[in-house]
Amino acid sequence: MALSRADLEALDRADPLRPFRDRFVLPEGVIYLDGNSLGALPAATPARLAQVIGEEWGRDLIGSWNAHGWFDMQARIGAKIGRLIGAGDGETIVADSTSINVYKALSAALQIAGAGRRTVLSERDNFPTDVYMAEGLIAQLGGRHTLRLAVADEFPAAIDGDTAVVMLTHANYRTGRLHDMKALTKAAHERGSLVIWDLCHSAGAVPVDLADADYDFAVGCGYKFLNGGPGAPAFIAIARRHQDAFRPALAGWFGHARPFAFSESYEPAPGIARAAVGTPPVLSLAALETGVDLMTEAPIAELHRKALKQFEIVRTLMDERLAGHVFRLAALEGSGGRGSQISYRHEHGWPIMQALIARGIVGDFRAPDILRFGFTPLYLGYTELWDAVSALRDIMETHAWDRPEFHKRLKVT
Amino acid sequence: MALSRADLEALDRADPLRPFRDRFVLPEGVIYLDGNSLGALPAATPARLAQVIGEEWGRDLIGSWNAHGWFDMQARIGAKIGRLIGAGDGETIVADSTSINVYKALSAALQIAGAGRRTVLSERDNFPTDVYMAEGLIAQLGGRHTLRLAVADEFPAAIDGDTAVVMLTHANYRTGRLHDMKALTKAAHERGSLVIWDLCHSAGAVPVDLADADYDFAVGCGYKFLNGGPGAPAFIAIARRHQDAFRPALAGWFGHARPFAFSESYEPAPGIARAAVGTPPVLSLAALETGVDLMTEAPIAELHRKALKQFEIVRTLMDERLAGHVFRLAALEGSGGRGSQISYRHEHGWPIMQALIARGIVGDFRAPDILRFGFTPLYLGYTELWDAVSALRDIMETHAWDRPEFHKRLKVT
Repeated sequence: MALSRADLEALDRADPLRPFRDRFVLPEGVIYLDGNSLGALPAATPARLAQVIGEEWGRDLIGSWNAHGWFDMQARIGAKIGRLIGAGDGETIVADSTSINVYKALSAALQIAGAGRRTVLSERDNFPTDVYMAEGLIAQLGGRHTLRLAVADEFPAAIDGDTAVVMLTHANYRTGRLHDMKALTKAAHERGSLVIWDLCHSAGAVPVDLADADYDFAVGCGYKFLNGGPGAPAFIAIARRHQDAFRPALAGWFGHARPFAFSESYEPAPGIARAAVGTPPVLSLAALETGVDLMTEAPIAELHRKALKQFEIVRTLMDERLAGHVFRLAALEGSGGRGSQISYRHEHGWPIMQALIARGIVGDFRAPDILRFGFTPLYLGYTELWDAVSALRDIMETHAWDRPEFHKRLKVT
Repeated sequence: MALSRADLEALDRADPLRPFRDRFVLPEGVIYLDGNSLGALPAATPARLAQVIGEEWGRDLIGSWNAHGWFDMQARIGAKIGRLIGAGDGETIVADSTSINVYKALSAALQIAGAGRRTVLSERDNFPTDVYMAEGLIAQLGGRHTLRLAVADEFPAAIDGDTAVVMLTHANYRTGRLHDMKALTKAAHERGSLVIWDLCHSAGAVPVDLADADYDFAVGCGYKFLNGGPGAPAFIAIARRHQDAFRPALAGWFGHARPFAFSESYEPAPGIARAAVGTPPVLSLAALETGVDLMTEAPIAELHRKALKQFEIVRTLMDERLAGHVFRLAALEGSGGRGSQISYRHEHGWPIMQALIARGIVGDFRAPDILRFGFTPLYLGYTELWDAVSALRDIMETHAWDRPEFHKRLKVT
């Protein structure tokens, strides 16, 4: 028997995560399927930011670096994120952007790998900025290293005796396909190579246990499933055994052993602190902390279970209700399962997504032809999935997507 | 005849900048002489941030990258700062921290300088993180370059035929001493070297005309005289003739020619955009923009005139009212005059500053023995200088600084 809207309403009523929805501010009339691009606003964030701005910055001014713990924010929020992703104590810090953290991790990994191995191995379908940062670093190191890109199915076979570092994104940004972090890390280590995991699409979305995977390095962003706000600062985690084994490429005063001694030459702080660089953006950090605090209350295994269920429901509804239209599911499971999204390919993906957005169904388009729908189980209900698919069905049946305004390209999608 | 409080009250009444004070939120009972460390809160900032958080992030969600111009913020705010510092159109962008922008500028400059010259020349008393970042880059480039530190008075003589890049901070952070930017840039160019100017303590404080100085690169922060909030993002300016002449070391997707094509390899954006790297922290950017907007209304020459007058007044008051105590003025003018502060050395500088802060006179201590008082003429009055010196006099006369709690060192000063 086909799924009905009433079935999904029943799932919502029984959903143990439902109370979390009230912890977010969500606009009326919108079904938000893009929390994996920009997480929604936690209800606690406006008041917290008003406090940081008015009381901490405005009233207590420079003294807030001590009085309100600004100086500790990077380590403090890092520790909270570290617990979400299973890093050891003192292994995670918040700093800069994911791109810059990729650069730090890769520079460190190449130092630790030593001169004998010269290949940086990544995935052809990795998120582009990770690959760009590697290109930039390799060029800067004088061309001694080579960047090689393999497709997902070639791992771990593609790792060979010349591979210094494997750099992979845990959950593919287009398809949500998950690598098996533990198995791939083990395979890389057996072949004598280090691994950098990008957790942008998995931190806060799927269970991650870095320590159990015997990880080396991980990076990730704060603005997706951590609900830290647009462009929220990113994080970097470094296994303790590597922390003192490299000299930071980006050697800034916040990563100095004694930043306020103003000594004349750089001395890296012990531990993860050396991954900090310049003065961090406190307002954005405060918003990130509020998002992370909320996420630490959520049962991550339950979140992922719900996301997988939402995946199956959308797949079922698409099969049952849009069978006559040519939507192709973008990926089956990867070796590690699937992340918190579902993606379909369609040759008219761009205007179809614009037509959906015009009706308040906010997903994302990813070139060349992918419609991406993110599941953020803290605030996305089941009935919304029915309504989203209904809107898509209507758009397809009435050919409503084929209007000139929906074909116009925007700068950012 | 000695200066009196009434004289300073008269100066306040006649001050053309006085209306600007109401554009800031300032705490009662505080005389803030540390706006050169963290600028005060503009009155417009809380409402602007509430809007960005509630309406842009909370209501319009991911669509705000287009609808509310988030994607353009780095260039837009950069252009505003560029006009404050006399850079050409399209030469300035906001991104990352000052430390990271130093790294970008230095990497670019060394590429442009070519292999013939191997020295990075800086100042012994430069702000430490600039020097640290240079050390980090040089180590990463395999030790082909050497970092040499000279003292301020040795410039330009210290620039020689092996100098690839001169890296200087315009206004010394301890003393406020100013380098003559135009003369030193000219001397460096005549010797075949490039120059990077750090404007952290001069942007928004003293007239800067980068184009007139025929500058190469400049960097600076947003949280001091630009009133952008704690850890506000920084800026980088690159003269147009250099913009396409280097490959960014930090090659991130926001600096890509077509970031949303998600192409497989990095292609630097034309112009200053290639100095952007990762997704920028929008909340902190919004606060920075509000601070910069306010600063663009202010007549910078008038600001600097007032700061110099405030310098002379404090010097006079210190001479007249604290003659019996051993405060030594930390610097006379540099080749370019002086910045927007006054600094005194005193062997008990730390506890004296803590005693001042305890009475609401907020200055800053800089190791080893410097009491630093910043002038932020938009919101600092003349009468406050009288009251600050009076408090210092009382602290010294009563020996009030020598209490145990004032000797306790804080993490951040």
